[in-house]
Amino acid sequence: MSLNPKRTIQELKELRELTGDSNGAQRLAWSDTWLKARAWFEAKTSALPVERHFDAAGNSWVTLHGESSKALLLGSHLDSVPNGGWLDGCLGELTGLEILRRFADEFNGRPPVTIRLVDWADEEGARFGRSLLGSSAFAGTESIEADRARTDRDGIRLDAALRRCGVVIDRFPEARKEQNDAAAYLELHIEQGPVLESLGLPLSVVLGTKGVERHAITFYGQEAHSGSTPMNARRDALAAAAKLALEIRTIARRHPDAVCTMGSLKTFPGIVTAVVGRCEATLDQRDLDAAILSGMFLEAQEASERFAAEEGCRVEWSKIWNIEPVPFHADLIELCEQSVRETAGTALRLPSGPLHDAAEVARAGIPTVMMFVQSLRGISHNKIEDTREEHLELAVSAMDRLASKAVEWISRS
Amino acid sequence: MSLNPKRTIQELKELRELTGDSNGAQRLAWSDTWLKARAWFEAKTSALPVERHFDAAGNSWVTLHGESSKALLLGSHLDSVPNGGWLDGCLGELTGLEILRRFADEFNGRPPVTIRLVDWADEEGARFGRSLLGSSAFAGTESIEADRARTDRDGIRLDAALRRCGVVIDRFPEARKEQNDAAAYLELHIEQGPVLESLGLPLSVVLGTKGVERHAITFYGQEAHSGSTPMNARRDALAAAAKLALEIRTIARRHPDAVCTMGSLKTFPGIVTAVVGRCEATLDQRDLDAAILSGMFLEAQEASERFAAEEGCRVEWSKIWNIEPVPFHADLIELCEQSVRETAGTALRLPSGPLHDAAEVARAGIPTVMMFVQSLRGISHNKIEDTREEHLELAVSAMDRLASKAVEWISRS
Repeated sequence: MSLNPKRTIQELKELRELTGDSNGAQRLAWSDTWLKARAWFEAKTSALPVERHFDAAGNSWVTLHGESSKALLLGSHLDSVPNGGWLDGCLGELTGLEILRRFADEFNGRPPVTIRLVDWADEEGARFGRSLLGSSAFAGTESIEADRARTDRDGIRLDAALRRCGVVIDRFPEARKEQNDAAAYLELHIEQGPVLESLGLPLSVVLGTKGVERHAITFYGQEAHSGSTPMNARRDALAAAAKLALEIRTIARRHPDAVCTMGSLKTFPGIVTAVVGRCEATLDQRDLDAAILSGMFLEAQEASERFAAEEGCRVEWSKIWNIEPVPFHADLIELCEQSVRETAGTALRLPSGPLHDAAEVARAGIPTVMMFVQSLRGISHNKIEDTREEHLELAVSAMDRLASKAVEWISRS
Repeated sequence: MSLNPKRTIQELKELRELTGDSNGAQRLAWSDTWLKARAWFEAKTSALPVERHFDAAGNSWVTLHGESSKALLLGSHLDSVPNGGWLDGCLGELTGLEILRRFADEFNGRPPVTIRLVDWADEEGARFGRSLLGSSAFAGTESIEADRARTDRDGIRLDAALRRCGVVIDRFPEARKEQNDAAAYLELHIEQGPVLESLGLPLSVVLGTKGVERHAITFYGQEAHSGSTPMNARRDALAAAAKLALEIRTIARRHPDAVCTMGSLKTFPGIVTAVVGRCEATLDQRDLDAAILSGMFLEAQEASERFAAEEGCRVEWSKIWNIEPVPFHADLIELCEQSVRETAGTALRLPSGPLHDAAEVARAGIPTVMMFVQSLRGISHNKIEDTREEHLELAVSAMDRLASKAVEWISRS
């Protein structure tokens, strides 16, 4: 039984039928629909010579034991955002399944190294606002105390929702033992951005996940009557924020892959007849290079101070969240590039703006790489998320090729 | 009994004591506190040889008949916003009362022309969102059909609130007959802006009320993931709006008295991880010159189209409200300037950004002028609204001087 990428597409459609509705995928982590998806997936592995178990964080492991206990890990996640797309997460998981089948068949159930397929629990964090939950437990970067009391919109606590699925948050650290013998981790994902489509390329190598600096910025000016306050007597907090909204683009464009986004801006009192007295903005900055990222953060701070001074305002920053860049493993990047080039002709190298479970695995010190397949219109987390089927087939083939190269690489090392 | 500006200050404090609390003035139109203020004011006129009545719109008229039926009108309003200041409106009204007393005394109850003191009903529009209610009925610019069903925050209709005070909205047109024999109208008001304070001047002549163009502007771009969307692939609605927020200042500064204000800006979806897909802004533009105002409106529209095109967005405008500029009467501006100069040395000429009842009176074709007295910190509609007492005394004296000049001007014409 050789690799059959068309079967992967067929199984993606089966899963969509089983766990989606007219608004899209509904595999919200810890929900009945998610559990249904996992049961369906488990049944798919029942004919294979594998061992199955859940770890202490609810991650699902399917292990095909090899001649060596050193293991190649393939993984992704079956959970989705509410009203999600048909590919985000499950494409990587079902591709891993197809590759596992091929290894089992080719090596008569006993490949040279162990092959493990993981379905990470709650990658999206859509219900409790805590993404990468299962993979962070695996990596030992979990934050149990901060997470246990998170609540969903109905007030249900995270720890209670997990317990309903048999997962006890205090036992999360036990998931780290799955790191034993892990020699490499591979993950396929849709790009969720417009770059590959704009270049007409089906696949790319992923260099790592960008670091993120995320801050709230408040400008304080002076509320004033829009009719009686001359232009030169104003301390307009919106003007200072507008200058920053434009300047962050200049800051980002100095670097090829950097992005800076002001996603929210609020004005107070926010009425048509008053100069804005206070303006609250958010800033999200990302780059794969830690020095570039911290440089952009400093530049934005300095610019905000300058604009505040120009407008007679003052400015305050407060950190929302940040994470360092996670570069992937050089050898695996090279193998991934070979696989993409052999499959699709051209191999672009891209950093990932969005985070993925692969970032947590890499933080655990396990050699890691990801591959992206083109997204149509760059749209994800939406029922119109899509990728051409010929590109999906290329992706399964390229990942299979990468898995073989990785097995050789593990065997050599 | 000669003019006594200190008495006016004393009476302002009396009124504050009677109708204010620790949060400021509470003379919301059509409320019991407002009725109490009007009863207190009526008692102040009881010793004078005057005729008193309410017109069909609830405006209060106190008439000192003169040798001629041609009438000099003095007026302002006793109503306040909730938590208002101690001067807005009532300063003009109590100054008019003091001037009426002086005329009654000086001419033994029969001045050369008739002197009428009006307390306009519901200048602020704070409860139903309809300002200049009484003066618009006087001027014949009322909008009964649009106004009758307005409701306050408790769902009480405007027509019901008025009826409780004995005012029937359908009879508003009858208020126009108060225009008979009206030869001039004078109004004193606090500036409610920072200009006089910044120049160290107590008083100014007011040239008219600025016209206003008030619009809602929406930029439509494309919501996109802040991590996966490169800078050059974005259609950022906030960027287009930020450019406009800055450009309206350049547009306003081409003209000495123009103002342009973006008072509200809202971002959608408005989350830290998404490029802004839609941005809603408001624009308030004012100038005394109708050509300048319409020119600024066109410039802002053209700029918004240009910025939308630059950012790959589209833009839509919708009118919130507008009013034409209302210039005051040249002869009365000249008399006001003389009065201010004779009282305070220097006479600045200023347009008024805020609207006042005087604008409605002028729109009725009655020669009109206003005088401003300095506001401390430019703050109004707030309990900390204030003016130095020495400036209040100068204002009462200057207005009295203006009233005498206006009587002579009416007598001559």
